[in-house]
Amino acid sequence: MRAARFYAAGDIRIEDIPEPVPKDGEVLIDVEWGGICGTDLHEYLIGPFMIPTNERPHPLTGESAPITLCHEFCGRLSKVPAGAKSADGQELKEGMAVMVDPRLNCRTCFSCTDHASNICARMGFRGLSGGGGGFAEMVAVPPHVCYPLPDGVELADAALIEPLAVGRHALTASGVTDWSKLSVLVVGGGPVGLSVLFNLRAAGAHDVFLSEPTAKRQDQCQKLSSRVLDPTQVKVPDECRKLTKDEGVDVVFDCAGITPGMHDGSAALRPKGTYVNVAGWETPFVLPLGVFMFNELTLKMSLGYNEKDFGDTVRDFIAGKFEGAEQMVTARIALEDVQEKGFEQLVKHRDEHVKILATPKRELLASG
Amino acid sequence: MRAARFYAAGDIRIEDIPEPVPKDGEVLIDVEWGGICGTDLHEYLIGPFMIPTNERPHPLTGESAPITLCHEFCGRLSKVPAGAKSADGQELKEGMAVMVDPRLNCRTCFSCTDHASNICARMGFRGLSGGGGGFAEMVAVPPHVCYPLPDGVELADAALIEPLAVGRHALTASGVTDWSKLSVLVVGGGPVGLSVLFNLRAAGAHDVFLSEPTAKRQDQCQKLSSRVLDPTQVKVPDECRKLTKDEGVDVVFDCAGITPGMHDGSAALRPKGTYVNVAGWETPFVLPLGVFMFNELTLKMSLGYNEKDFGDTVRDFIAGKFEGAEQMVTARIALEDVQEKGFEQLVKHRDEHVKILATPKRELLASG
Repeated sequence: MRAARFYAAGDIRIEDIPEPVPKDGEVLIDVEWGGICGTDLHEYLIGPFMIPTNERPHPLTGESAPITLCHEFCGRLSKVPAGAKSADGQELKEGMAVMVDPRLNCRTCFSCTDHASNICARMGFRGLSGGGGGFAEMVAVPPHVCYPLPDGVELADAALIEPLAVGRHALTASGVTDWSKLSVLVVGGGPVGLSVLFNLRAAGAHDVFLSEPTAKRQDQCQKLSSRVLDPTQVKVPDECRKLTKDEGVDVVFDCAGITPGMHDGSAALRPKGTYVNVAGWETPFVLPLGVFMFNELTLKMSLGYNEKDFGDTVRDFIAGKFEGAEQMVTARIALEDVQEKGFEQLVKHRDEHVKILATPKRELLASG
Repeated sequence: MRAARFYAAGDIRIEDIPEPVPKDGEVLIDVEWGGICGTDLHEYLIGPFMIPTNERPHPLTGESAPITLCHEFCGRLSKVPAGAKSADGQELKEGMAVMVDPRLNCRTCFSCTDHASNICARMGFRGLSGGGGGFAEMVAVPPHVCYPLPDGVELADAALIEPLAVGRHALTASGVTDWSKLSVLVVGGGPVGLSVLFNLRAAGAHDVFLSEPTAKRQDQCQKLSSRVLDPTQVKVPDECRKLTKDEGVDVVFDCAGITPGMHDGSAALRPKGTYVNVAGWETPFVLPLGVFMFNELTLKMSLGYNEKDFGDTVRDFIAGKFEGAEQMVTARIALEDVQEKGFEQLVKHRDEHVKILATPKRELLASG
């Protein structure tokens, strides 16, 4: 079968590789759509970073580059062993549309046994760490990572469930359970920021403000926030105070990972507010201690998602709570074009895109 | 009356100033003992920092240097207007021993009206911001900041209630309510670390470890921790793991404010553990992001204390829950000697001391 495999930074090859052979009760999936993630792009630019190498094969898969890419993927079941049950306890059948929770977990470490498999000591992802990936015609996975999607759900959009689960976890990680009376500032309107915004809307957050400097991303986020602030034009903390009766916002989600954003975000918080970092950082994480100390701010970290986040996101996606999320898809391409029309597009026009989806089935592309 | 007044860094003068005149229902206190705090020392070394100056008088007192020092003080009521009630609702009487909550609050800002007067936007302290101070013969204060101390309580030790309230608030700020099953690492065994240790013992914390490099401080903390670790001799995170079935500690209190301590502390935490910063920092606060992110650690800040912390500390002090705290007093001196035998001692022999108390009443010194 054809697969897009990561060899090194800038080097993704479309190759013919053997079809996966399901083992130990695994199901076989005919992949329909898979998305390119910021992590994939990071690997493409300066990897291998998370992708295992000969010197450090992944502890759970034993594999190393070349690795079949894509951990945001969905498809249809083509082989199902008798009695196979989905993540949510449904009986799996051939032909069923499914979204896959791509995470690989040891299931034995402190975090895995403490409902925090997202920070498993040996965590990995299908599509990054081995075990197959969505940029291929087929993937074999255990049934318990499959979430069936009913007929009404557009499989062409369902790969978005994975990035949406990242935003869901950020909400969970904040420690907040009732968003209905809270004001929130999201710093950065890229794919992660959008995911957080969609989840905040689904959770019924009261006031949601976004700080984002680029016009394109401001447009993309307009409908999801009560006010879009341009940090190159206004003082974001001052504006947030004006919008919150001079109190400051209750929660900040840092989806940008840059120092000016952190300074704005922490200064925009009310006393005892919560700052949630969802971003990766390329510079040192230097906290403005005075602001944190004199306001007793709390800093929380959000990494990935766990089973509950993923299951909740699937449920909300099916229920239509992420209406408009399909607009996150800014291009649909063929598997064969994933380097040129996928990764290279993101390198050259990152702000123009949110999510690029690829399919191994050219017929889906023609119809879409 | 005599008072020790801060003029500038290195310049504290014993002067004769007018006795305070109680107003608006205030009581008058004959001061017995007052302690030198790390904040005072900071002012003495590189101030005025919190102490107001002509250019920036304190917003609540309107005062500026020279300022009568000492915010950790107790004494006996010498003038009480009819019907004056203490912080805890007791009727105040002349001759009563009282501990004073020295904080000045605006009582109107967001924090003050949200049970967080410790981070009042205009907060100050008697003894730092004006309004009198404990390094004087007398202080006039409103009755509601007075906590009566019963006869069994040694007034010579009661000034310790204030620094103990700082540790009490650190426990509150952590968000933990039940310490009985938790393991804790305290980084730094100075006055703040000791205060946290005393409070952890009073709160019944399960396992308490201390990281402290100096032999003198190790000795001072020995009875308050189940294991004292010397970071110059052992790898503190490894030792903490050994002591917690390879899991890591639940909570870290940073009472040191130095980068190696932060690295040890965060690496010693279990996944999803809580890092509480109680320290002031003289270097940038650069968080080890990877450790925080891949373990989803929470960072909390602790500043000062509020009414509840102070009241709870008084109650526990009276109940004898801080047994041995009197050993924190490493010298008792006369008010007149506060610069030479107080501040200069702390500058030259900081690690030898925890708390130096001064009294304006020489007769107390002779008997003590």
